[in-house]
Amino acid sequence: MTATDPEQALNEYQHRIEAVLDRHLGTGGAPDARLIEAMRYATLSGGKRLRPVLVYAAGRTTGAPEPALDAMAAAVEMIHVYSLIHDDLPAMDDDDLRRGRPTCHKAFDEATAILAGDALQALAFDILTDGVAELPAPTGLNAVRELARAAGLHGMAGGQAIDLGACGQPIDLPELERMHRLKTGALIRASVRLGALAGTPDPDALERLTRYAECIGLAFQIRDDVLDVEGDPEILGKACGADARLHKPTFPSLQGLEASRERAVALVDEALTELQPFGQEADLLRFLARYIVDRMN
Amino acid sequence: MTATDPEQALNEYQHRIEAVLDRHLGTGGAPDARLIEAMRYATLSGGKRLRPVLVYAAGRTTGAPEPALDAMAAAVEMIHVYSLIHDDLPAMDDDDLRRGRPTCHKAFDEATAILAGDALQALAFDILTDGVAELPAPTGLNAVRELARAAGLHGMAGGQAIDLGACGQPIDLPELERMHRLKTGALIRASVRLGALAGTPDPDALERLTRYAECIGLAFQIRDDVLDVEGDPEILGKACGADARLHKPTFPSLQGLEASRERAVALVDEALTELQPFGQEADLLRFLARYIVDRMN
Repeated sequence: MTATDPEQALNEYQHRIEAVLDRHLGTGGAPDARLIEAMRYATLSGGKRLRPVLVYAAGRTTGAPEPALDAMAAAVEMIHVYSLIHDDLPAMDDDDLRRGRPTCHKAFDEATAILAGDALQALAFDILTDGVAELPAPTGLNAVRELARAAGLHGMAGGQAIDLGACGQPIDLPELERMHRLKTGALIRASVRLGALAGTPDPDALERLTRYAECIGLAFQIRDDVLDVEGDPEILGKACGADARLHKPTFPSLQGLEASRERAVALVDEALTELQPFGQEADLLRFLARYIVDRMN
Repeated sequence: MTATDPEQALNEYQHRIEAVLDRHLGTGGAPDARLIEAMRYATLSGGKRLRPVLVYAAGRTTGAPEPALDAMAAAVEMIHVYSLIHDDLPAMDDDDLRRGRPTCHKAFDEATAILAGDALQALAFDILTDGVAELPAPTGLNAVRELARAAGLHGMAGGQAIDLGACGQPIDLPELERMHRLKTGALIRASVRLGALAGTPDPDALERLTRYAECIGLAFQIRDDVLDVEGDPEILGKACGADARLHKPTFPSLQGLEASRERAVALVDEALTELQPFGQEADLLRFLARYIVDRMN
């Protein structure tokens, strides 16, 4: 039984997902040792595990069974990790460091990093399919579709493509928001919706949770942009000022640092309003919303 | 109603899958024009469409409904195309030409090619999930799992990793077969099994079709290796001798050209033996088995 205290529950879920990921990335029987090592290296490196924790937190509000939540949490994190591996490649953002360690293609090589990302995406769908098999039909297929859409052309991959095209280009605030709704927002939204779908959400609750997720997804990205300006590289595990150096359009560059901070706080307030009809089963979701704008990394 | 004559049916299914893929890759509403263009460029370039045709052909033997087969056929082809895009990248096989045209990263750029592959993999699962929704549970989830496993660490991606590590390394015939069972065999096997699963296969039929697929999958790869030695570059749409130049271990390099040809023919005979209990509904599968060893490209 996971703790009711939100901070303790966050910590417990962060440990729990680490164990779940480790189990799914067992090296036994892997056809290629280097590939599975690269997948483990990129995946089992700690991190906030925001998306998996959102899966669990949303599942708490709809009485979702934990085995299904474990699979969903692992699946969304694998999609997230694969996107980081590919985003870091020389042809993309060309990053050498991630969470204070060499990026996957630096620790291994480019070909292995590309394949590790590819294999993590496939593994995400494999694990998800197994984990939702016990849920009443058609919930399982709905969950797979939700994740596939969030990851693809109309979600994360589409957003990354806009991001690549936007470097050094003039872009306005609505376009910037649209890009982030796709690039990071879609997977955060899917994390919350998957967790909720694993239980028995009524339509109103699912809509509220979806809007909650959309608000915190955007707030998360704004906080990321703000931290890139004013964060501590030691705590961030990476250099600051990368966005400005790459001439990436950001919320601070378009509307200033103070207005960006205010916008993030307003979005979190909006997210909390959506949770008003819920009881203490939504306390972890509330805690996570605040955590997103207060975090230092 | 598709033709009963196998050659005519092959032709009809090749046209049919082209239209299905084109429909799923509609540009309307795509968030990034360049990304969807790259996905269309790589996918809608003709080709043999062997894997989709195998889906339809296997579906004919189990009375599978055509809408589910359309989705499965599109899904396996998108997984195949994404793997070609990534395999052609400079960090992988570094190929400039594919089917007589510039490869995706040459026609666009590396970052777009990586993302186009990523988005095609996600789209494959999206389309598959929609297409199997009408099949009786748990067939849909089983189909998704089948495709995810064939694409991932224990299938195509794992085989490609072994292939990368094998260049210039001594490797024996059983290891070479193991690599190809993963790299190309797994998806061919999944194509046949998906098509069969969409209908009502009895367990014996499914086992026979699976062994049929394993035999033709290996025969297909041997034929590929043989064509790289003795094929016509004009018909192949790419230069020959690439394997030898890259010091890739191949069936001809390990057991000679004549023994390789004989092995391919023996595998096709084995595949045809598995089909003996089937009637004329399996004629297209029989035709495809022979086509695989007779093909010139």
